[in-house]
Amino acid sequence: MTSVRFLYRPCILRLSSCTTRSLHYNHLSFSTSNPSIPPLGRSTRNRLGIFLNIRSSMSKSAANQVQQVDRILDGVNDDHGGVIVEMTSGPLDPLVFASLLKASLYHWRQLGKKGIWIKVSIELVNLVEHAVKEGFYFHHAEPRYLMLVQWLPSTANTLPVNATHRVGIGAFVLNEKNEVLVVQEKSGATRGTGLWKFPTGVVDEGEDICDAAVREVKEETGVDSKFVEILAFRQSHKAFFEKSDLFFVCMLQPLSSDILPQETEIEAAQWMPYEEYAAQPLVQKHELLRYILDICTAKKDKDYSGFSPVPTRTGFSETSSTSYLYLNKQGL
Amino acid sequence: MTSVRFLYRPCILRLSSCTTRSLHYNHLSFSTSNPSIPPLGRSTRNRLGIFLNIRSSMSKSAANQVQQVDRILDGVNDDHGGVIVEMTSGPLDPLVFASLLKASLYHWRQLGKKGIWIKVSIELVNLVEHAVKEGFYFHHAEPRYLMLVQWLPSTANTLPVNATHRVGIGAFVLNEKNEVLVVQEKSGATRGTGLWKFPTGVVDEGEDICDAAVREVKEETGVDSKFVEILAFRQSHKAFFEKSDLFFVCMLQPLSSDILPQETEIEAAQWMPYEEYAAQPLVQKHELLRYILDICTAKKDKDYSGFSPVPTRTGFSETSSTSYLYLNKQGL
Repeated sequence: MTSVRFLYRPCILRLSSCTTRSLHYNHLSFSTSNPSIPPLGRSTRNRLGIFLNIRSSMSKSAANQVQQVDRILDGVNDDHGGVIVEMTSGPLDPLVFASLLKASLYHWRQLGKKGIWIKVSIELVNLVEHAVKEGFYFHHAEPRYLMLVQWLPSTANTLPVNATHRVGIGAFVLNEKNEVLVVQEKSGATRGTGLWKFPTGVVDEGEDICDAAVREVKEETGVDSKFVEILAFRQSHKAFFEKSDLFFVCMLQPLSSDILPQETEIEAAQWMPYEEYAAQPLVQKHELLRYILDICTAKKDKDYSGFSPVPTRTGFSETSSTSYLYLNKQGL
Repeated sequence: MTSVRFLYRPCILRLSSCTTRSLHYNHLSFSTSNPSIPPLGRSTRNRLGIFLNIRSSMSKSAANQVQQVDRILDGVNDDHGGVIVEMTSGPLDPLVFASLLKASLYHWRQLGKKGIWIKVSIELVNLVEHAVKEGFYFHHAEPRYLMLVQWLPSTANTLPVNATHRVGIGAFVLNEKNEVLVVQEKSGATRGTGLWKFPTGVVDEGEDICDAAVREVKEETGVDSKFVEILAFRQSHKAFFEKSDLFFVCMLQPLSSDILPQETEIEAAQWMPYEEYAAQPLVQKHELLRYILDICTAKKDKDYSGFSPVPTRTGFSETSSTSYLYLNKQGL
């Protein structure tokens, strides 16, 4: 593997205000996506996680006299001509970071890099201001880190958009006695209304919809179940701040009957005769609940067919992992 | 409307290091979700967008002598016992902000507030470090702002999770001659493979899936179309960073036939006989494309039924807006 880390600019960055002990980055293994770029100098990664870019002089005599050294931030190439830098432990003097970033940007521009990503852990929040000063902007954030990004070329920015949706599930669990599993919640819009509703919940990050439905039913009621299919889904906007919501109504088959309501969220849970659930005034009054009732009744009594999950490979890449395609099996 | 902005703590915060001219916040109208809390002092909002909380003494003589003044950040109550503060223009001296934030947190704790949200525009990025020092952490970010949050009570944190999914569409557009609308892309995984594929794209923030499909077909090929239904969808994880992807395969009916490929993204576009599309080696080789082909063929030749959109109201609230419920109409 050829290292392509070098700098044309003959400058030496000072690291006087930070100690060796304090510099540790969580960096991934380096790989170049453009092996055709020849190395113009020697590069060496030091134990600080910063690259020392040593530019040898082109003349022998000069090479004997001095080596011009630049330090740049340690990043990994991504698959789209970009670089990802992780600043995930520290501390690091902000001014040192600013200098390193300047040198690194110069370096990346020389290499024709496109999107530059800097992931800053919350412990290093004092670096964020300096990244913004160097032209970075926010891409996304999670509780413990902020992802900054900058598009270097003059061509159109093709960086991926941030996540726009949260995903939720509602579980229609019907047993052989024609009873449906329902709960009353301790908080939320239905609290205190007396409404018996399907168990609902939010799909965790990286969780499949079918797994989330089984998990939520188990968590809220203690009932084991098997995923059958998705009966319908709803997309709604501005569900929280500017973000949207995709809510999937799922059909599940119970595998156990004993109920143990979750203490923190659930006021009560029970198996309720389906007709009794359907007859609740709030179900009849509320348009969305009425629609869902119609669908569940069609599933129960007629030939309604939803989407069931089929495992398949994720994307076009050969290295992609298994994920679910949801489709109408009955129609195939 | 009763203002509930007051402070018990007799302190005066200094605003010496920032000018009047420089202080402008973009704040929403104030509403209290708990009208039962009585006002204990006078409050007045100054033109800086900061509340001056004037605590009158309980004795007449004291009231004549001095009024103890606290300034707090201007926020609006949310529907969940929390407060939302928007720091969206500036500049503001970071130390002044830190003092205001301390006083505000004290104030909000006294009121029993739960989740405190601070939206910081990128122009005020120098305030972020101080919010983190006061116990805030990141919730989400968009290019021009960062949302910080803190849960004040000792009870379990019930703040909503961040968005987890991006949503994409693929458009199966079939005309009366049994031809399918296909494109070759200038970039991405299929570039240079010779594969003719369905137009695809990412759903914009706040956009309905059915609208996004029509828009993408128009943008990529110039063809007008009408949304018919969702044939299937796939959920995949770690599609970008830690986020997931929901990709909806949509059936559309063309309303025009002339093709005008988008210059920046599309290498070529054409109407292709369906059998020719299906016979492409890459379609046959790639598991997901083969599945989608099976579904589209079932839609074309058999009785496959996907999910079509039905307008309904979003949520449980009476004030909610219209959104789409996607369901199998044929099965109802």
